[in-house]
Order: sequence, then structure tokens, then C-alpha cells
Amino acid sequence: MAAGPEEAPPGGSARLADIGRLAAFSDGVFAIVITLLVLDLRVPEYHQGELLASLLREGPSYLAFTVSFIYIGVLWLNHHALLRMVRGTTLALSWINIAILFGVVIIPFPTAVLASALVDGDSDDLRVAVVMYALAAALMSAPWLVFFAYLRRHPTLRARHIDQDHVHAQEARPITGLLLYGLAGLLGWIVNPLLGLLGIIVMIIYHGVTSEGLRPGALRWVRTGRRG
Amino acid sequence: MAAGPEEAPPGGSARLADIGRLAAFSDGVFAIVITLLVLDLRVPEYHQGELLASLLREGPSYLAFTVSFIYIGVLWLNHHALLRMVRGTTLALSWINIAILFGVVIIPFPTAVLASALVDGDSDDLRVAVVMYALAAALMSAPWLVFFAYLRRHPTLRARHIDQDHVHAQEARPITGLLLYGLAGLLGWIVNPLLGLLGIIVMIIYHGVTSEGLRPGALRWVRTGRRG
Amino acid sequence: MAAGPEEAPPGGSARLADIGRLAAFSDGVFAIVITLLVLDLRVPEYHQGELLASLLREGPSYLAFTVSFIYIGVLWLNHHALLRMVRGTTLALSWINIAILFGVVIIPFPTAVLASALVDGDSDDLRVAVVMYALAAALMSAPWLVFFAYLRRHPTLRARHIDQDHVHAQEARPITGLLLYGLAGLLGWIVNPLLGLLGIIVMIIYHGVTSEGLRPGALRWVRTGRRG
Amino acid sequence: MAAGPEEAPPGGSARLADIGRLAAFSDGVFAIVITLLVLDLRVPEYHQGELLASLLREGPSYLAFTVSFIYIGVLWLNHHALLRMVRGTTLALSWINIAILFGVVIIPFPTAVLASALVDGDSDDLRVAVVMYALAAALMSAPWLVFFAYLRRHPTLRARHIDQDHVHAQEARPITGLLLYGLAGLLGWIVNPLLGLLGIIVMIIYHGVTSEGLRPGALRWVRTGRRG
Repeated sequence: MAAGPEEAPPGGSARLADIGRLAAFSDGVFAIVITLLVLDLRVPEYHQGELLASLLREGPSYLAFTVSFIYIGVLWLNHHALLRMVRGTTLALSWINIAILFGVVIIPFPTAVLASALVDGDSDDLRVAVVMYALAAALMSAPWLVFFAYLRRHPTLRARHIDQDHVHAQEARPITGLLLYGLAGLLGWIVNPLLGLLGIIVMIIYHGVTSEGLRPGALRWVRTGRRG
Repeated sequence: MAAGPEEAPPGGSARLADIGRLAAFSDGVFAIVITLLVLDLRVPEYHQGELLASLLREGPSYLAFTVSFIYIGVLWLNHHALLRMVRGTTLALSWINIAILFGVVIIPFPTAVLASALVDGDSDDLRVAVVMYALAAALMSAPWLVFFAYLRRHPTLRARHIDQDHVHAQEARPITGLLLYGLAGLLGWIVNPLLGLLGIIVMIIYHGVTSEGLRPGALRWVRTGRRG
Repeated sequence: MAAGPEEAPPGGSARLADIGRLAAFSDGVFAIVITLLVLDLRVPEYHQGELLASLLREGPSYLAFTVSFIYIGVLWLNHHALLRMVRGTTLALSWINIAILFGVVIIPFPTAVLASALVDGDSDDLRVAVVMYALAAALMSAPWLVFFAYLRRHPTLRARHIDQDHVHAQEARPITGLLLYGLAGLLGWIVNPLLGLLGIIVMIIYHGVTSEGLRPGALRWVRTGRRG
Repeated sequence: MAAGPEEAPPGGSARLADIGRLAAFSDGVFAIVITLLVLDLRVPEYHQGELLASLLREGPSYLAFTVSFIYIGVLWLNHHALLRMVRGTTLALSWINIAILFGVVIIPFPTAVLASALVDGDSDDLRVAVVMYALAAALMSAPWLVFFAYLRRHPTLRARHIDQDHVHAQEARPITGLLLYGLAGLLGWIVNPLLGLLGIIVMIIYHGVTSEGLRPGALRWVRTGRRG
């Protein structure tokens, strides 16, 4: 299990740019996305005296809002831990980060589609919305995997207190995301949209619990499988 | 009145993460929420020559906007003081902070409902809107209480200049919030929605005045009552 | 021309809180407001093949957008210079800053009203919109005046390189704002709305040019008048 | 190839203001704009059971969203590199930066127009939308050119590790932007709107690849042409 450099650093450490503005920009994006969600909570149209009934009718859309709020919170905690693993950025790493943010920024859209399907749609619409949400979540895992792989291959970017095995172990998280969000979408499509939604919620909790990173030992099977 | 550690620190101080990004993320959320409120101030539909009359008709909604603007300002000052009490964060504390931000992020929604009820609703609608606002404000107090309680149980997280009694005294503020915002909602439901709204405004002023924290001596009755 | 302390500092310098989070929060608000303006630039309804005509019809609303963009830019530069005058904040100063931000946050609303009146309104509507914009700008000057007056009375808050006369001289800027934005509104109401709009634009340029502060000597007449 | 100061610094280095708040404000604007784009992704109107068909019909608008997301990412990386070239700001430089941000802030508007034309417009509307997008991108290059030219004339503003030739070489990038975005607009107008759109995408990629700056040698022809 070699922890040493596997190739030369990209351009030498003199090319490393400070991580500060990248973190500030990312925090800004996370803060805005988590707040924009509330824009989908609109006062429903109502006749005088029927405000309560109209609000209650919208109830299920609040579920979609709450799930996505927690999801973005989870992603922020993960991203927080992610940036603590590096001590600088390169152009390539900045682009990988922008791809990660792309996944974050689009969340309000499948959320709004899901909320709409929960309130106004039939079971076909709900199926479409759940699959769309699951697909977005699955694809969103890809740039995280690229981030960890890039960091593994460019050890000079690693923060001093992070070792190679730790970086490697983290790759299991986006791989799990890709597979299991995809599976949740499949369940939602074939079996039952609510089951798919449940799968999505379970995955969000998983990423919340592991947001500070997996310990190498805990996932030996994954690394063995990928390296063996 | 024990001020010493009541249990072991969570994982040792080596696990403490820097508070900087958490503060930046929180500031971002506060800044966005306070600004998003203005999005509910929309140009009303009007016939040529009747802009003034249309604007005046919307007048009461500006009251809701102004109350919520001050409310978020109060919450920001409270949060500012909150983070000055800690010298680092743990995963649990980050989650408690996200729960606090959840309460902040939803404010524009009951604000919009209240503005709508003030302009277009009848007294039933207004009652619903006031109770909804009061409930949101009451529930929003819960994670603040959890924050103070967590900080009291994990003294190693406290900033150096903060003593145990100070942390303990602060618990009185969210408890007051839970009870009195709830009471304001009850008054608004049973007696008169405008009375409930008045109660909400009084509570916002109370939290504004006490935003830098209560002194332990000032609230001996609360601590005595809870400890005796 | 006494430059010494005129009264005791508020609670002693130990009570001074760091200006960092206040600046970050304010920058966030400015950044969001200046960006939210673009939300009023909506794709107009159009029939196929008539996109260009529809866009051109909206032309005057782009003027309102541009004026407000520059206005918020001016206010940000002024606020930037403002915070460089202080070396810490108190609860009172934080509240004055929130009042300043209130003035900033509402700008998109009179902007949208003005844009709407320019495109869809008659001359009465335009008059209402110009007066509303001018009134908002005039009232927005008030908390700036309070800020300078408070800073003059609490010299311990001043940054080291700022002297008393400099603070005092700055009070002329919000006073000019109060009077001349008010005058622009009056001109717009009585004489011609476009003249009022021109007055607003001139005032924005004035505050842009003086954003780094007036020199004491340049405004002796103001200080003499107020002190004599 | 003189790298020395060409004129006196503007007011002496004592007048230089810290770049920190300018960077924070700019990052905030970039983060908000890139996130606001998602607001144009709205849940389409649909009849029960037809959500999927409605979403697919909106497909082309997602292309416009994705192009603009990458575009703003490119601009942020360029801006990041831009601010690393200076060690402080003056009032003039702050204004040039606000002009740069103006160009960034308006992007969601031509994006929304383009998305609308792709989904609902005919070929005339699409031509208008592509030309509008190209014009906005071309004009947006102007303040970048002013920034580099200003920095070349005020060498005291340069960061220590940046030499005069490097600054000079960068002027080629906004000039290329002005010319080639303009050409893309022309192609879109005269030949085919989709060709114009392709030209825009090529230019965005060019600015992405060169975001860390051009090396002086790589563009000798440009400098020779402009200096000879």
C-alpha cells in the first residue's frame, strides 16, 4: 500500500494556488443553494378563508424541501472535509471543484420537480420525479470520485496531516453514491416511487454519517476489491 | 454550581475543526435570507395611472417584510455572539448549526404567508398566518437550546473567555422563545391575530436586546428552577 | 476643534467585537442585492418571431437596472470606506449597520417599480415611481448620518489612522443625500419626473466620487454651520 | 521592453486599500450568479401524467443553462487569476472591477433569452438570442482590457511575483474576446444561429484554457503588432 508520490506534482508546488478563494466561492454557492430552496415554498393561490386548506394541500412539497435542505447540508459537510484534505489548488482541481458545485447547484430543480409531482402529479409523474432526483444524485457523485482519484495521484496537493490510505479510502463514498442512488432510481422506476424516495433518504443519511471520511480499515473490502 | 468538565471532550481537541468556514457559510445564509425577503416585494399589477393606489393597497405586506428583516438581523446578532462562545466545531455541533440555519432559511415563507394574509385574506386567514409565523419562531428556538446544552456538556469546545455559568444562563433565552412565541401563537389563535402579531414583535425585540447574552445573575430564577 | 474623546467608550475596549464577520455579512448582502437586480430582467412574453421587438420594448427598464447597479456599487464603495474607519463594533454599531443594510436591501423594489413605470406606466405612474425612488434614497441616508455621529461620539471605536475631523467631515455626505435626494423627489413630483430621475443620477455620481471620504477643509462651511 | 514604472503610482502606496473585501465581494457575486442560473430551470406546466414529456420539451434550455454555468466558472477562474496579479486596490481599480462584475451579473438574462428562444422561438428569435448573447460576451471583455491596461500603467499595484511583460501579454485575451465573440455574433446573424452558438462555446473553452494567463512568448505576434 504505497503512500509515496506516484507521479510528479503538477507543475511543482510553486504553481499551487491558495485554497482560500476557492473555499469562499464554494461556501457562497452552498449558502445560496440551501437558501434558494425556500423560493420553491410559495404562498399558494387561495380563496379568502381557505389559506389553511391551501397550505395543507401543499404539505408533501415541504417534505421535498426538507429532504433537499438536509442533503445540501450533508454535501456542505462533505465538501468542508474535502477541502481540509488539500493544501492548495491547481487549475485542474479548481475545475473538478466547479463540477462538484454544478451538482450542488442543480439540486433545487429536481427538488421542485419532486415537490410538484408530490402535490399535483399522478403516480407516473412521481415515478419520473423520483428517478430524476436519483439520477441527479448519482451523477453528482462522479466529480467527487474524480477529486479523490486526482488527489491520490498528486500527493503533493495533500494537506500534511492526510495520508495516502485515507484519500484512497474516501473513493468508496462516491462509488457507493453512484451505485446506490442509481439503484434507488431503479427501484423507484420498477417497484414503487416512494420506495425509491426512501432509498434516496437512506443514502443522504449515509453520506451525512460518513461526511468526515471513512477510516481505511473500515472499508478494506472495497479497496481489496479495487486493487486485487 | 460546577463549572468543570462534566464529561470527556468528544474525540479530544485534535478533532476540533476550525470555526472559520462554518461562520462564513452561516454568514452567507443570513445575508441571503435577509436579502431574499425583498423578492416578496413585487410590483403589483396595476392599470395605467393607478400605480400609487396599487402600492398603497400592498402597504400591510411591507410591515411583514420589515418585521422579518429585523427578526433576521436579531438572529444574526445572536448567532454572531453564539459562535464567539466556541473555539472549534465538531460534526455534532455543525449539525446543530445546520438545524439553526434551517430555522433561519424558512422565515421568508411564513413572512410571505403573513404578507399575503394581511393584504388579501380575511380574519381566518390572518389567524392561520400569525399562528404559522409564531409556531415557526417557537420551533426555531429548539436547536439554539440544543446548542447551549451541547456546549455546556462539552466544556472543551468553549472559547477561553467564556465560563460555564455564562453558557448555562443562555439556555434561558431559547426556552423563553419556545414558551412565549408559542403563547403568542395561542393568543393569535384564540383572542386576536393582531395581538399574536404584537406578541411576536415584542419577542423579537427581547431577543434583540439580549443578543449579546444574559448575565448569569440576571436569570437566577431560571437556573434555580431548572437545577433545584 | 477638539479631537479628543467626548465621552467614555461604550463598555471599554474589551467589549469591542471583531469587525470581520460584520464586514463579511455586509459584503454578502451587497453582493446579493447587486445580483438580484438581474432577476427583474425577465424574458418578455412574445409571439414567435417577435422576440426582438419585445426586448426593445423593455428597453427603458434596462436603464433602471443599470442606474441601480451603479448605485449599489457606489454604496458598496462607501461602505467599504466606512468600515475602514472603525476598529471594532459594538451592539449599537451593529444595529446601525443593519439599518444601513436595510436601505441597501430595498433598492431592487423601487428599481422594479421604476422599470415597470418606464415601460407600462403613464406620466402619473412615472411620477410616483421617481418620487418613491428618491424618497427611498433620501431615507437611506439617515443611518449613515447616525453612523458618523455615533463614531464621532465614541472615539475609541475609530481606527488608528482616522482622526476626529475626518469623521466629522463625513457627516456632510449623508446630510447632502437627505436634502438633495429629497429635492430630486420634489422636482420629480412638481416639475417633471425625468428631471427628478436626472437629479437622482447626479446624486449617485456625487456619492461615487466622494466614496473615499471628504477632506475636512473641503467642507468647512458645513461644519461651521453645524458647530457655530 | 520596459518593465519599470511608466508613471507615478496613484497617490502613493499608502493609498492602496486591501484587496480582501474586494475579493470577498467579487466571490459573492460570482457564487450568486452561478447559482441564480438554476432559477431559470422551472418546473414546466404539465397535465397529470405528462411530466416527462414536458421536461423533455424543455431539454434545449438545459443546454443554455450548462453553457452559462461553465462560462461563469471560466470567468471566476480568470478573475481569481486577475486578483492574484495585484497587491492592493485604488478607487479606479475598484470601479473597473465593478464594471467587470456588471458583465458577469447580466449573464443570466441573455441565458434566459437564449433558453426561451431554443424552446419557444422560431429561427428569427434564435438569431436574436444568439446575437444578444455574443454581444453581451464581447462587451463584457472591455473592462478586462481596461483592467490590464490600468495595471500596466500603474506598476506599483502589481503583486511582487508578476512582471510587466506578463501583464502586457494578458491584454491579448480580452482583445481576442472582443473580436471573436463579435465575430460569433456576426456568424450567428448572417450565416446560422447555431454556428454562432458554436463559436461562443469555442470562445468559452479558449478563455477556460487560458484562465491562468498567457505566457509572453506565446503571443509575441499580438504584442509586436500592438507595439511595432
